[in-house]
Amino acid sequence: MSLLIKNGRIITAVDDYRADILVEEETISAIGKNLSVQADTVVDATGKLVFPGGIDPHVHLDMPFMGTFSSDTHETGTRAALFGGTTTVIDFVLQKQGRSLHEALAEWNARAQGTAVGDYSFHMAVTDFNENTKAEIQQMVEEEGITSFKTFMAYKGALMIDDRQMIGLMQEVKKQGGLVTVHATNGDVIDYLIAKHRSEGKLSPLYHYLSQPEVTEAEASCRFADMADYTGCPGYIVHMTCEGALNGVRNATRRNQRVFVETCIQYLVLDASLYERDFEGAKWVMSPPLREKKDQEALWAGINQGLVQVVATDHCPFMWEQKLMGKDDFSKIPNGHPAIENRMELLFSEGVHKGNITLNKYVEVACTNPAKIFGMFPRKGTLAVGSDADIVIFDPDEKHTLSAQTHHMNVDYSAYEGWALTGKVKTVLLRGTVAIDNNECLIDKGYGQFIRRKKVSGKI
Amino acid sequence: MSLLIKNGRIITAVDDYRADILVEEETISAIGKNLSVQADTVVDATGKLVFPGGIDPHVHLDMPFMGTFSSDTHETGTRAALFGGTTTVIDFVLQKQGRSLHEALAEWNARAQGTAVGDYSFHMAVTDFNENTKAEIQQMVEEEGITSFKTFMAYKGALMIDDRQMIGLMQEVKKQGGLVTVHATNGDVIDYLIAKHRSEGKLSPLYHYLSQPEVTEAEASCRFADMADYTGCPGYIVHMTCEGALNGVRNATRRNQRVFVETCIQYLVLDASLYERDFEGAKWVMSPPLREKKDQEALWAGINQGLVQVVATDHCPFMWEQKLMGKDDFSKIPNGHPAIENRMELLFSEGVHKGNITLNKYVEVACTNPAKIFGMFPRKGTLAVGSDADIVIFDPDEKHTLSAQTHHMNVDYSAYEGWALTGKVKTVLLRGTVAIDNNECLIDKGYGQFIRRKKVSGKI
Amino acid sequence: MSLLIKNGRIITAVDDYRADILVEEETISAIGKNLSVQADTVVDATGKLVFPGGIDPHVHLDMPFMGTFSSDTHETGTRAALFGGTTTVIDFVLQKQGRSLHEALAEWNARAQGTAVGDYSFHMAVTDFNENTKAEIQQMVEEEGITSFKTFMAYKGALMIDDRQMIGLMQEVKKQGGLVTVHATNGDVIDYLIAKHRSEGKLSPLYHYLSQPEVTEAEASCRFADMADYTGCPGYIVHMTCEGALNGVRNATRRNQRVFVETCIQYLVLDASLYERDFEGAKWVMSPPLREKKDQEALWAGINQGLVQVVATDHCPFMWEQKLMGKDDFSKIPNGHPAIENRMELLFSEGVHKGNITLNKYVEVACTNPAKIFGMFPRKGTLAVGSDADIVIFDPDEKHTLSAQTHHMNVDYSAYEGWALTGKVKTVLLRGTVAIDNNECLIDKGYGQFIRRKKVSGKI
Amino acid sequence: MSLLIKNGRIITAVDDYRADILVEEETISAIGKNLSVQADTVVDATGKLVFPGGIDPHVHLDMPFMGTFSSDTHETGTRAALFGGTTTVIDFVLQKQGRSLHEALAEWNARAQGTAVGDYSFHMAVTDFNENTKAEIQQMVEEEGITSFKTFMAYKGALMIDDRQMIGLMQEVKKQGGLVTVHATNGDVIDYLIAKHRSEGKLSPLYHYLSQPEVTEAEASCRFADMADYTGCPGYIVHMTCEGALNGVRNATRRNQRVFVETCIQYLVLDASLYERDFEGAKWVMSPPLREKKDQEALWAGINQGLVQVVATDHCPFMWEQKLMGKDDFSKIPNGHPAIENRMELLFSEGVHKGNITLNKYVEVACTNPAKIFGMFPRKGTLAVGSDADIVIFDPDEKHTLSAQTHHMNVDYSAYEGWALTGKVKTVLLRGTVAIDNNECLIDKGYGQFIRRKKVSGKI
Repeated sequence: MSLLIKNGRIITAVDDYRADILVEEETISAIGKNLSVQADTVVDATGKLVFPGGIDPHVHLDMPFMGTFSSDTHETGTRAALFGGTTTVIDFVLQKQGRSLHEALAEWNARAQGTAVGDYSFHMAVTDFNENTKAEIQQMVEEEGITSFKTFMAYKGALMIDDRQMIGLMQEVKKQGGLVTVHATNGDVIDYLIAKHRSEGKLSPLYHYLSQPEVTEAEASCRFADMADYTGCPGYIVHMTCEGALNGVRNATRRNQRVFVETCIQYLVLDASLYERDFEGAKWVMSPPLREKKDQEALWAGINQGLVQVVATDHCPFMWEQKLMGKDDFSKIPNGHPAIENRMELLFSEGVHKGNITLNKYVEVACTNPAKIFGMFPRKGTLAVGSDADIVIFDPDEKHTLSAQTHHMNVDYSAYEGWALTGKVKTVLLRGTVAIDNNECLIDKGYGQFIRRKKVSGKI
Repeated sequence: MSLLIKNGRIITAVDDYRADILVEEETISAIGKNLSVQADTVVDATGKLVFPGGIDPHVHLDMPFMGTFSSDTHETGTRAALFGGTTTVIDFVLQKQGRSLHEALAEWNARAQGTAVGDYSFHMAVTDFNENTKAEIQQMVEEEGITSFKTFMAYKGALMIDDRQMIGLMQEVKKQGGLVTVHATNGDVIDYLIAKHRSEGKLSPLYHYLSQPEVTEAEASCRFADMADYTGCPGYIVHMTCEGALNGVRNATRRNQRVFVETCIQYLVLDASLYERDFEGAKWVMSPPLREKKDQEALWAGINQGLVQVVATDHCPFMWEQKLMGKDDFSKIPNGHPAIENRMELLFSEGVHKGNITLNKYVEVACTNPAKIFGMFPRKGTLAVGSDADIVIFDPDEKHTLSAQTHHMNVDYSAYEGWALTGKVKTVLLRGTVAIDNNECLIDKGYGQFIRRKKVSGKI
Repeated sequence: MSLLIKNGRIITAVDDYRADILVEEETISAIGKNLSVQADTVVDATGKLVFPGGIDPHVHLDMPFMGTFSSDTHETGTRAALFGGTTTVIDFVLQKQGRSLHEALAEWNARAQGTAVGDYSFHMAVTDFNENTKAEIQQMVEEEGITSFKTFMAYKGALMIDDRQMIGLMQEVKKQGGLVTVHATNGDVIDYLIAKHRSEGKLSPLYHYLSQPEVTEAEASCRFADMADYTGCPGYIVHMTCEGALNGVRNATRRNQRVFVETCIQYLVLDASLYERDFEGAKWVMSPPLREKKDQEALWAGINQGLVQVVATDHCPFMWEQKLMGKDDFSKIPNGHPAIENRMELLFSEGVHKGNITLNKYVEVACTNPAKIFGMFPRKGTLAVGSDADIVIFDPDEKHTLSAQTHHMNVDYSAYEGWALTGKVKTVLLRGTVAIDNNECLIDKGYGQFIRRKKVSGKI
Repeated sequence: MSLLIKNGRIITAVDDYRADILVEEETISAIGKNLSVQADTVVDATGKLVFPGGIDPHVHLDMPFMGTFSSDTHETGTRAALFGGTTTVIDFVLQKQGRSLHEALAEWNARAQGTAVGDYSFHMAVTDFNENTKAEIQQMVEEEGITSFKTFMAYKGALMIDDRQMIGLMQEVKKQGGLVTVHATNGDVIDYLIAKHRSEGKLSPLYHYLSQPEVTEAEASCRFADMADYTGCPGYIVHMTCEGALNGVRNATRRNQRVFVETCIQYLVLDASLYERDFEGAKWVMSPPLREKKDQEALWAGINQGLVQVVATDHCPFMWEQKLMGKDDFSKIPNGHPAIENRMELLFSEGVHKGNITLNKYVEVACTNPAKIFGMFPRKGTLAVGSDADIVIFDPDEKHTLSAQTHHMNVDYSAYEGWALTGKVKTVLLRGTVAIDNNECLIDKGYGQFIRRKKVSGKI
């Protein structure tokens, strides 16, 4: 089985040139000028961009949270991702405190296997680090192909580990060739502010925002960087939202440290003024919350400075009815918003089209760096001979409008309703098969594979 | 005319895979698994790395300086560069104060045209910015393909411009789509220290070092960054040597600024203890001088942090007899050292082989970033379909020793005499032609072309 | 009752002049040139310095800790303090977790009242902040004259409060006109390292030091400053030891913040090389531990920059037999060292005599700032009309040697055995009465009064 | 001759107490409770503050500048100063480039001697540092009592020295026990912007402001600090206006450096919105210009952090007719504004009365620190036995309004017209003589003395 993409403008994290791409079976076998080969299928990409399938390393599918489940399953979520040009996602397995990592993995495997449409992998969230868990780290890395370990500095009593556990985990993960990632906000301070606001009868979504001020994220980001520096463990801060936290990472460069940083598309394009819309603000109740214009500027700059390496989504959708659980109390609104389908098009339109980043940087932060940092490279994240043929054919000029009417995520509102974008995903290949074309998904539930990942070094 | 490189491990600034490369005429036409084509020449690269020809954006060939000329001509210098895997260099045209840019360009053209063996381009050093020079900037960019403008914050009376000229130049260069580069040291302070040391009879090469303390470079680097930030002009600091200067750039990230930074191979691998060897220290008399171990660590970290984008040489060789001009007075030692041939192999051995940087980062800083920053990309600096077939085939395991006995630079000592390296250049192609093979240069004087460069945006 | 000090060189935190001081009853009533008054007692201070009695705002007397009690009672400790020129100390009341502040205060009052020789006050250490404790804060401020509240970011399970409690406490203390002070080290990380070292059989005093690396203090100091800035509560970091922590405070100046900083005499004059003396190192086992030469330099600089306002002792002596409790395990060595008697003379000799600080700065950090920051000014901490006549007459030229043989602290070793000092306390007045003269203590147990303190603003 | 001030509230940079002050001849001879002495004159200070006479270390009297002279002579200027509670001023002698320091001093002596009403001293502005000038430094320090040397990093061709001269001067001044002060703005960049604005026809006072952006001051302040750190010479930055420059000094604390900083009253209370008033903005055309609200906040914070030690005026008044010289061209407006009379009352009202600083800090920055830093202490700058009886009796509650109608400066507008203040100078003593009382000046032209100053150490 072969497929030839003719005459596209090929973009990788570094390159930009016109050529044909030959796909045989699941991988790319050749790239050349006017390749004179016979292929089973020929796709004309004249006038189009051709870039690697996106990788979203931060999604929560079918996740039990706050008494409900996020509304996209591995089926609906990875399918919506494909529509938006994202071919691989990394979901989070959440250890239950007092239970084992393996038990949690089994639970997540049960939900994802045979269900996913697109490819996926798992981070392991360690919520209880002890002698037993410690022994499981090596097994995860060596046997399960799970090399990244998520931690929470917030959500005390449910997900949070303290700094003693953090240091212990870092030393073990470093030893095993993995990476520690972190939700870096000071949960204790946030818990105080939530309780204070509630006790004062301040219950609208705006107080979700005011309960997580910038300092709570800046502080925890610095603390995490301190511990990563002390242990020498590769570290990665998820969903960074603000200048204060980024400045922590910038300051850490002075001691010759590099900490990886992920931001999410929403923090680049939305801001906290949305919380002033009464309960409609619940659509954007997520943690950390949206910030200010100055923070957007800092994050775009951070990308161009090479200090922010990844743009993800933290996709965690909830139906409006679920959001209504917090109608009378912001602290009961399920946290999260839908973006898995919108990330690549939003980042192109707001980033590349508006001149904030180059095309190469676009591919770097949306496709390549997630693959490299998390040990899936060069199988995923690039267009190169031998790599999986996960390919997006993209019209950089087509204008369209985002809407819940037309999106494929299992959620009844769009966080970007009515946004007019420039640039649209046209065709998507996943491991050599046309997955999306003409706005249709051509592959079935279960096509998606679990991607085992390699050890990492912290250098890319 | 075609050439097929079989079965190498291809390394770009991003990718790492095994494939064949087909070269037709001067460019790469296809890359693929087991390409089934007939080529005029076939090169077996099994077990070898295949990466883009190096670009050294900081060399001084046949340069009039301190009453003499640097000892490599465009012929000997670019040939030596090719032996070391560098296929393109950027030399500096020096305006004479009171004269025009065009006059200087004509002089340099006269020395380089028909002489160069490898490809080359020119930076224009603006040493006298005034209304006349201002008008020439656009001509250089539009007509001559020279888009980078070098400035000196030292060498008062010869090369230095003051901050008033600097700001004016930046505003004009930004308008024309160019880039301002800078020798960032505080010349006034250095002149004071040189005079002081001389008046005290402190005349050995050690006092060259002590006349240019770290603060002189840190200060000027910060000042340049301030002016670049104020004007919004893309800025590039050449030959950064020290933690103090790098910290200036790190601090500037806090105001969302990015300044490009080049270091040179010698600052990564040599240190100031060499100045304690009496007059032998003259071999390493260059400006800025070598620094300390802590500075080496900071520079390696800066590369991995993405804050140092380029590793060049500032190649400016002088025969020992020329160095002896300063036998009795360090201030009369011609400044500069030979490295054009050694850069790629040293950086591989000390960087990649010793685990300081990854293979991709190696190609990024030695080949790709210079091409991107200076407007030669994608023609130069990568291995991609359509790019010039400037290709290095490299044995990562071969051990060899650097020596003046065996090098090809026109200078009678080696700055790295006796250094044992791992990794050696085996074959080099320049625009599709085998230039170096079996330790022989197979192309002639005059083969090298002047490379016109494009406008730049300051984003890569 | 009156006393006239003739012809001394009077030093305050600002002034330096020669005059006579007339004391009537407990306070200073006049200062003048050749005061022509008849006094009951006349002391000739010709050739001597005359400065305010020292205030040591960080001492632990008769404190239950690690299964024993610190070996100086309020009697022996305040008497020794007087011999060394310190007329007032502030001791720490430690709340028991689960119990009230008042209960703890009652316990401490029982030990101190009628016992102290010198004047004293109390900080209240809040180790369990909850709704009950919250209500007690106002009572402490308004009724007990206790306006400073100590917190611990270490010693989990015994003294530590988490950040949620910290923020809550800060908001309440600010409202009541008090100050929050902090032992700023990351207890979680330290607990991890202690456990790790013990499990590896690393049990000597050196591992006490290695279990509290600089980052544990730098991190916690930054975190405390973040919370103080967010709440606007006046904050004070006790016993700062290192450059890393001081840099946190220096960085915080950029957001227009001021956090008060106390260092202790030992961190200015001793360093961690003492821990290499096998078990003798136990003499200097304290938390945080001694640091490096670079840290001493930073702390002296911090004093001169105005960023370190106080030099205290954290006096917490243990007999050698008590120290031996940790003979086989550093974590069982009672933490603390004796210095209450040595502070003023050490700081004079190492600070003033060696040129590190001026005479005015000496009085400022050892006498005046503690009084101002903690609400005892102008009653204590200066030589001014109306102030308590707490006065030290000091020979700046007399040389002497510190030794356990001659000191008055109830501890059988000196942390400064054999140190040769320049400058010696000759006569000390406490509230107008000669307390020390001719190396004898002339006042009795019980003379010392509890000093009620005023509300504070965080500005001095 | 004796004078007794009864029952005032005495404020120094440290103290705050009620007592009587006895003045005999020119100095303070005693301070005490209810001093029972017979004095020739008795002043009742009940309900009043009594603090040291202010010292304004930055004034320009009768100064030739931009083709005219500042409109206050040493007579009118020092008299106005006395009305405002300032008893001593330090004026600037300006060397002419190419001429000697002594020649300039002679010129200034001729204008000041026999003319001044209040006490005065001189800084020596070195505008041409060479071998001849170098020899004069020692003479100034040893023979003339002039220990501070002013430099300009702006006004090229008239006052500016380059960094080579700066380093040379610093090394000599350090050797002689003096202090280098600096007008720290990047003159080259400013000259560029002035020329640019003029060439574009942008000629209103607003463009004076826009020609001196914050970066020009931040850059030069950092550069000066770098040179002071390298040479070890005590340094003092005059008239700091902005957060950017202050942050330079804050960052320098990290290398254990202390640079003294002076701001001026106008930068604390006025802002750049005044430049939007068309040509009326000329009233506030001064260099550096007024800044933003954020800068005011930073400067108040800097004072409380101890990083800004002095509040001066840079008093340099011009009649409105003189200002009109620049009616058609901002660059011809004589730079400077009148404030010598207003400083103490403005700083009290805006600083102390509004809660920005304490009373002690007020005296510290307006009286004591100038005396200490510039070698006039303890003769000037405090209220202590033996010090000059330069005393202000101040009603902290009296309300009044500033106006050109009522001020005593020789200038026909007030920069603070209509400002309503709280707190008023009532009586002023200069060396024991009542100089101001009941809004009248009771001493004559020529009463003012030149104050010789001592060597300084850079530590206070």
